[in-house]
Amino acid sequence: MSSSGTAPAYRRLTVDQRRTQLIGAALGLFAHNPPEDVSLDDVAATAGVSRPLVYRYFPGGKQQLYEAALRSAADELEDCFAEAQTGPLTRRLARALDRYLAFVDEHDAGFMALLQGGSVVQTSRTHAIVDEVRRTAADQILFHLGFQPEGPEGDADEQGGEGEHSKRAAGKEGQRAGPRLRMTVSTWITVVEAASLIWLDEDKQPPLGELRDWLLDHFVALLMASATRDAETAGIVRRALDLEERDGPVGELARRMLPVVTDKGHLL
Amino acid sequence: MSSSGTAPAYRRLTVDQRRTQLIGAALGLFAHNPPEDVSLDDVAATAGVSRPLVYRYFPGGKQQLYEAALRSAADELEDCFAEAQTGPLTRRLARALDRYLAFVDEHDAGFMALLQGGSVVQTSRTHAIVDEVRRTAADQILFHLGFQPEGPEGDADEQGGEGEHSKRAAGKEGQRAGPRLRMTVSTWITVVEAASLIWLDEDKQPPLGELRDWLLDHFVALLMASATRDAETAGIVRRALDLEERDGPVGELARRMLPVVTDKGHLL
Repeated sequence: MSSSGTAPAYRRLTVDQRRTQLIGAALGLFAHNPPEDVSLDDVAATAGVSRPLVYRYFPGGKQQLYEAALRSAADELEDCFAEAQTGPLTRRLARALDRYLAFVDEHDAGFMALLQGGSVVQTSRTHAIVDEVRRTAADQILFHLGFQPEGPEGDADEQGGEGEHSKRAAGKEGQRAGPRLRMTVSTWITVVEAASLIWLDEDKQPPLGELRDWLLDHFVALLMASATRDAETAGIVRRALDLEERDGPVGELARRMLPVVTDKGHLL
Repeated sequence: MSSSGTAPAYRRLTVDQRRTQLIGAALGLFAHNPPEDVSLDDVAATAGVSRPLVYRYFPGGKQQLYEAALRSAADELEDCFAEAQTGPLTRRLARALDRYLAFVDEHDAGFMALLQGGSVVQTSRTHAIVDEVRRTAADQILFHLGFQPEGPEGDADEQGGEGEHSKRAAGKEGQRAGPRLRMTVSTWITVVEAASLIWLDEDKQPPLGELRDWLLDHFVALLMASATRDAETAGIVRRALDLEERDGPVGELARRMLPVVTDKGHLL
């Protein structure tokens, strides 16, 4: 990462650079090892610094370093869902999923330890960070469905001066999604998490592209099912379908569905 | 619970009865209060016994009592999914869901504390119990889809002498479900959990019957979506659809779907 290849970087980093370097080292270790197997000595060795230096930056020790690394990972994860509001919804979602799943692939053991719970470093603060990532993902999806995001973070952003220019503040005449639609979106985010954990547990099978397509199918299926019981969701779905392409995920799903329901006319 | 209404039950209970009574008192308290707010004094007072007596039965104190209460709740929860193998699959699942959701309704705070994590009494053992409930639920659903259950518990039951009479051992020619189908079922169980937590968080709205129907819709939608990519799932779905009734959940879902997709012929 340093611009000079040979000289030791020990003394030349600013406070912020050093902090970033230590968090990066911790994140790499926490990504691939259960938290209980990572020591401050490991972090110091990975960063090429002394243990006291790590403590100077993180007096709270491993717990503080874990939370800082988690905060950094959460920021990265939240960025996965930022996507331009153009084109078919499923194309946008496919790109967001590709980024999310690449993150899961890269931080495998850490992702698993975090979401499966029972780890020594988990506290109400770490749970709050994970919940914030989920809420941000839900906000982003609802935003692409034409709604103003939920949650205090969105309001804070608006008050913080970003105003109508904020990516999170815009929405269709300021309206908020109803409970059915919010529950559908939150549920799908849970599906993505659960499928990611199962994928890691099954030695990263099937290939990521297949997993992404399967999750997209499930998004469409869950949204369609909710649309049959909720007028608001039905309106959103009908508008979204107008943007979908014949050769896109929805068209392909619909055509693949036909042979499954052949001869099942007794249900209609 | 006692057969005599007035006389104190203190001295007349057997060891097993006393143990059951204490677990029942603990379960009632843990159901409606976060674990950190429940003390052994509360349990003793609720059971009408002394604190030392509670310690005599549970020398490990609150942690041991919590795990015993959780074990008891897990047994009850696993029973929710036991269902006769007759009639349309969605009717069987509806009955299992009714029982599961009644459990969630009854143990609201305890259910939330357990699944949301971050509680002081959670350990790898409590996580293992929760995972076992999930695995049992998945086994039961796969069993209704015609498959032999996964997991070591199923094998242990068979070796334990129940053999081919065991509810969990039977299966279509002993075959096991493929990874896609297992992932679909596990994913849906996560959907049920997530929706239950959201339902509790939203002050138990919508009414339980609506939540059950919505979860059934999602089961059908997830299974149909998976069927379009997996021959095994497609075969299962086609056989299951033969048993479904026109006025059942699948028929109703299909008919409610029609207006949503009207005029979307560009996708076919």
